[in-house]
Amino acid sequence: MHENDRDLLPEGLGDRLPQQAWASQTVRRAAHDVLASHGYARVETPVLEFEKALASRMAGVQVRRMFRFMDPVSLRMLAMRSDMTAQVARIAATGLSQAPRPLRLSYSGQVVTVKGDGLDPARERLQVGAELIGTDSPDGAAEIVELAIEALRAAGATGVSVDFTLPDLVDTLSAGALPLPASSIEKVRRMLDAKDAGGLVDAGGAAYLPLLYAVGPFDAAIERLQDFDLNGTEERGVLASRIAGLRAIAARVGDKARLTLDPSERHGFEYQSWFGFTIYADGVSGSLGRGGTYAILGQAGRDPEAATGFSLYPDPLIEALAAGAGEERRLFLPLGHDREVAARQRAIGWVTVAALADGDEPIALGCSHRLEGAEAVPL
Amino acid sequence: MHENDRDLLPEGLGDRLPQQAWASQTVRRAAHDVLASHGYARVETPVLEFEKALASRMAGVQVRRMFRFMDPVSLRMLAMRSDMTAQVARIAATGLSQAPRPLRLSYSGQVVTVKGDGLDPARERLQVGAELIGTDSPDGAAEIVELAIEALRAAGATGVSVDFTLPDLVDTLSAGALPLPASSIEKVRRMLDAKDAGGLVDAGGAAYLPLLYAVGPFDAAIERLQDFDLNGTEERGVLASRIAGLRAIAARVGDKARLTLDPSERHGFEYQSWFGFTIYADGVSGSLGRGGTYAILGQAGRDPEAATGFSLYPDPLIEALAAGAGEERRLFLPLGHDREVAARQRAIGWVTVAALADGDEPIALGCSHRLEGAEAVPL
Repeated sequence: MHENDRDLLPEGLGDRLPQQAWASQTVRRAAHDVLASHGYARVETPVLEFEKALASRMAGVQVRRMFRFMDPVSLRMLAMRSDMTAQVARIAATGLSQAPRPLRLSYSGQVVTVKGDGLDPARERLQVGAELIGTDSPDGAAEIVELAIEALRAAGATGVSVDFTLPDLVDTLSAGALPLPASSIEKVRRMLDAKDAGGLVDAGGAAYLPLLYAVGPFDAAIERLQDFDLNGTEERGVLASRIAGLRAIAARVGDKARLTLDPSERHGFEYQSWFGFTIYADGVSGSLGRGGTYAILGQAGRDPEAATGFSLYPDPLIEALAAGAGEERRLFLPLGHDREVAARQRAIGWVTVAALADGDEPIALGCSHRLEGAEAVPL
Repeated sequence: MHENDRDLLPEGLGDRLPQQAWASQTVRRAAHDVLASHGYARVETPVLEFEKALASRMAGVQVRRMFRFMDPVSLRMLAMRSDMTAQVARIAATGLSQAPRPLRLSYSGQVVTVKGDGLDPARERLQVGAELIGTDSPDGAAEIVELAIEALRAAGATGVSVDFTLPDLVDTLSAGALPLPASSIEKVRRMLDAKDAGGLVDAGGAAYLPLLYAVGPFDAAIERLQDFDLNGTEERGVLASRIAGLRAIAARVGDKARLTLDPSERHGFEYQSWFGFTIYADGVSGSLGRGGTYAILGQAGRDPEAATGFSLYPDPLIEALAAGAGEERRLFLPLGHDREVAARQRAIGWVTVAALADGDEPIALGCSHRLEGAEAVPL
């Protein structure tokens, strides 16, 4: 087929044809049904809003990744949403600031970035998420991790695994047991993230080396993290509450997913506080989402509010589901069929396809059956 | 509550809080369930694409109403979608050009315009639609009008009424029975649209005056339109096939909706061909959507393809539904509850809200019941 230039879609933006769109809706409905059954009320947010509003609620939101342009009505800068979490945080801090806590909200929608992410050229993705606002306790975090797993499983994911991290680990250690000069903190963080032992020593972070080995299957890794924190003493380490929190979360979800620990992983956790997690499933390359604890910046003069949440990006799951979609049963209605009969067939679950002209061919139109009198006859 | 400037949303853009979001999802699901049951396969389209692609498939698409900006990747102009019909037309002419006709597609999503429409400041709206591609016959149009009515009724609309129009009426008449100088056609169209009899005469359209009276309840108005077309003779008028088409559509849907005719109405029908309609419901000011027949511009060297479709903008219906939403039954799960029991309660339809801390109050959290042992006890 000859394609005109005008038919090309911009890089990283695409359609979903019927099978993919069916899979997308199936995934969304399944995830939202799980969230709703746990008391998470859905909210919807605009696809664009003031650039400042998208950036001001949470630390680490990257305005540079958003499409931005001037609003001819307000003459202020607008941005397309690249992450709905910041919008839900805005709702929690304004329209629902008086709602009782903990406040449970869910959402889903398309988010857009100016450029793709690493090797993935996609610039538009489906985001599905839940936010538990008013707490960042281990019990709240356990509920959020469990829900992320349950939502993905309901959407068809199998072999789910969850990787835990401690996003503010270096801040906590350097303020306590393992002081670092302010000028080294960022470099130490980077070397830990890159798992670069030599670079870590060069950066003055030799004392942090054992963290590179507190990585892997959860039960063993958390023991090594605890040994590091206690450092041969029997005193309470600076990470004691974090380690206890991770153990509590793992106890809650250990029978539902494979668990791993990577305490110094920080990619994608720019706005998280003590706890973060990334979630994976069999047959899907790359992660399906992430979450953790964070703070919502409040109104002027108010304290930030603790919150815990997750964001799933189920596009790869949708592709996998679409590939396995079966043919549906469709009933061809010939010209002059009885409309009452056709309505009764739809009421019992048939998809009907009405002939509009003599040439309409049931098989070409994807039908498996044909209405004859009041009966659906296989073709 | 004190609102910071950063919390204000741009004019015409807003959130949907839980009741509104619930209503929005209910309306979308109901409409899509109706469309799916009639064989309309869902597609999804990107929220932005090349400006040229959005404008090139259909006559009359107004690029000026779209947010446009440069794509830093392609260095070409992008636009946010203001109407998904043009995107579905693109899919039909490219990715699904080889699919058998008639091709039935449905879609829904948010669309955005630079400015509000008349008195309505909204710049983002939900659009839900269906397109029947490959035909613009009266039978196809009847299916589309019937589906629009059925989808709105399933979404909760009552007292639905449909106003029919003939978008290419002046073109047809001026090319046939009632010639006009090319320079007058646009003015005659405008005066008919404005129902301005004096202006119509001034524009040289005196012969078109009877059209101003072929307006109102369908059965009477179509008779007056036919009298005008026959003009006292017994010959076949230039509008004969259009009048027969309108009668066929009316015969199909006359028992489902109140029908009216306004043959020279053209607002919102810039890209429609012989048939257009606007749809209304009780208790909703303004229309809920419109539709009709149109042509999809093909690849270079190919003929345009006939199509029929409708677009609903159900935001007012969503507001009405949200206002009447009842309280749901929610089951409070106290600290230390049995998780197996809670899962069983969800499986039979309960929404559960788990306590995370001692202070969590079931009534403040919107719960109607509390789990005691294995039982849901009213509060």
